[in-house]
Amino acid sequence: MGKVFEREAFGLAAKDESGVLSPFRFSRRETGEKDVRFRVLFCGICHTDVCMAKNEWGFTTYPLVPGHEIVGVVIEVGAKVTKFKAGDKVGVGYMLSSCRSCDICTDDQENFCPKMIITSGGKYYDDTMTNGGYSDHMVCEEDYIVRIPENLPLDAAAPLLCAGVSVYSPMKYHGLDKPGIHIGVVGLGGLGHIAVKFAKAMGTKVTVISTSDSKRDEAINRLGADLFLLSRDPEEMNDSVGTMDGIIDTVSATHPLLPLLGLLKYKGKLIMVGAPAKPLEFPVLPLILGKKMVVGSMTGGIKESQEMVDFAGKHNITADIELISADYVNTAMERLEKGNVRYRFVIDVANTLKPTPQLIICD
Amino acid sequence: MGKVFEREAFGLAAKDESGVLSPFRFSRRETGEKDVRFRVLFCGICHTDVCMAKNEWGFTTYPLVPGHEIVGVVIEVGAKVTKFKAGDKVGVGYMLSSCRSCDICTDDQENFCPKMIITSGGKYYDDTMTNGGYSDHMVCEEDYIVRIPENLPLDAAAPLLCAGVSVYSPMKYHGLDKPGIHIGVVGLGGLGHIAVKFAKAMGTKVTVISTSDSKRDEAINRLGADLFLLSRDPEEMNDSVGTMDGIIDTVSATHPLLPLLGLLKYKGKLIMVGAPAKPLEFPVLPLILGKKMVVGSMTGGIKESQEMVDFAGKHNITADIELISADYVNTAMERLEKGNVRYRFVIDVANTLKPTPQLIICD
Repeated sequence: MGKVFEREAFGLAAKDESGVLSPFRFSRRETGEKDVRFRVLFCGICHTDVCMAKNEWGFTTYPLVPGHEIVGVVIEVGAKVTKFKAGDKVGVGYMLSSCRSCDICTDDQENFCPKMIITSGGKYYDDTMTNGGYSDHMVCEEDYIVRIPENLPLDAAAPLLCAGVSVYSPMKYHGLDKPGIHIGVVGLGGLGHIAVKFAKAMGTKVTVISTSDSKRDEAINRLGADLFLLSRDPEEMNDSVGTMDGIIDTVSATHPLLPLLGLLKYKGKLIMVGAPAKPLEFPVLPLILGKKMVVGSMTGGIKESQEMVDFAGKHNITADIELISADYVNTAMERLEKGNVRYRFVIDVANTLKPTPQLIICD
Repeated sequence: MGKVFEREAFGLAAKDESGVLSPFRFSRRETGEKDVRFRVLFCGICHTDVCMAKNEWGFTTYPLVPGHEIVGVVIEVGAKVTKFKAGDKVGVGYMLSSCRSCDICTDDQENFCPKMIITSGGKYYDDTMTNGGYSDHMVCEEDYIVRIPENLPLDAAAPLLCAGVSVYSPMKYHGLDKPGIHIGVVGLGGLGHIAVKFAKAMGTKVTVISTSDSKRDEAINRLGADLFLLSRDPEEMNDSVGTMDGIIDTVSATHPLLPLLGLLKYKGKLIMVGAPAKPLEFPVLPLILGKKMVVGSMTGGIKESQEMVDFAGKHNITADIELISADYVNTAMERLEKGNVRYRFVIDVANTLKPTPQLIICD
């Protein structure tokens, strides 16, 4: 590779397990032959960012610059880059690279490649830690970048890169994208509200299942869901027993699976995209009696990420967001932990993350 | 249907929740136009028979004649029967009828039809309770009967009708029948030992996973498994992490799923065919990180039951059985509850269930 030049970058980083973010200067590699360098415009705040910032999974290396729902504008491309040019609107999600040669990569599911490199908090080939999108600019291999459709507002498009593909991928993979079928969406948060929009655009009947009656009106009238079930109301739940072809379960809190399995038809699929920290109670008999399945899914590959944003472009689908300035990020993360956001925080990076004197602190 | 004549039958029935079987006289309907009447030769003892006899699921009607792994010889056929004639060797499994018109029946999965009628302890169209194969003869609609290949010993073939199809069906349905893939079989009992035989005949690599080291030799040397893992030996289990395409879990006792999920490759399938009474602990994260699936399966449809016995015929696969006389059935059920059988009890019905004076007790 020869000598690797570096360029100055700045962002917001967690420095310890408090998870509090503060200004951070660091360097990014020079633009390689197949690299795309882009200015970050917007970056969504995913719940994973909070978990990583606080080292909740035990493998965080500090300092950590979070962010993997990134939208930006290309400022420079390497000599062998063919897909992008300066000025293009691009997005980067959960990963920056993978091995490109294993069965999983050739199956276009790089997100499950054992050598996949995550966008924030991963180790790159040059042994540097990867720094995410809470930063002024990024440099990425072109094959791990998607093109954002021209018609989408870039701020509200950012959460598509993780939340969007996390629900789109299993809906497509498991055949839950067929007009006329009935889909349940459990939890109306960052992932859930986009799942409702995708499912409606795919022509399915959509039922939102939530513990919070306050979301009934929004589910039906704002997001266009066909039905709302209050999960703690046995009568409402009973009325829908055996009616659903698939359920996207976005909830990461401990919750009962039995009622959800009951909602599924024969051969119905319960798709887990939220990861509860503790094991859930798993009743096996309903699974057996109905040939039902519970399956996990995590983000998506690059090919389906591009397909997903193109689908979103075609149907004008973006996230419902609360756009915040960079100096609000710690408050936003606190609110996110309490579920107090409808439905995704997005940092207005380009306009508010400035290398002002008070932000530039050498580390 | 006109007047329904009846014919005298006798068998062994549980009369109350003690589950103890004793002689029982009853009647079976006259042979209808599409019915096949056959003399029962052999009947396997499935764990379900014990549960039903003791009303463990709360819906048993007494008296109950158990038995749904039935092999017999045709003695009479109705005027419109086209597939069978007197002298044919036939088998009946878990069900006697279904609606024939719903999506599930047209999908050849009559075993999941909401109107499916179970062979023992179900309610037939004429409002009589169905009596199973612990009896001298049966009468069944021809469409719910399979033909037993000539080369199979009829006693050891009987367990194929339930135990056999219970493992064959999900192996085929979920694509676990491809040469070269790696299958795990959890629990080496009635279902598990047949699963090993089927998997080897399909050309897969087979690993038996068991809590009992005493089964190692049998698994490898008698059944031909490629590998044996003692599930409570972390070292053995660790060596096989991420190696299996699918696992057939036949265990109905409470057991941990985490180690099994760990054995699966990316997109691996854990197929539950045993039904633990209590919910299991279900760790969701391993499912998500590996796009893995847990799926239930229960017996099989008629089309796949015929395919299964034909496959068994082609590969000379039957169950390893302990052939017992009718008067041993209560002892056998006690032993079965303790797991003390290798691997299936089969009652020698035709030779030992005799209407001797001491057996004929009018009820």
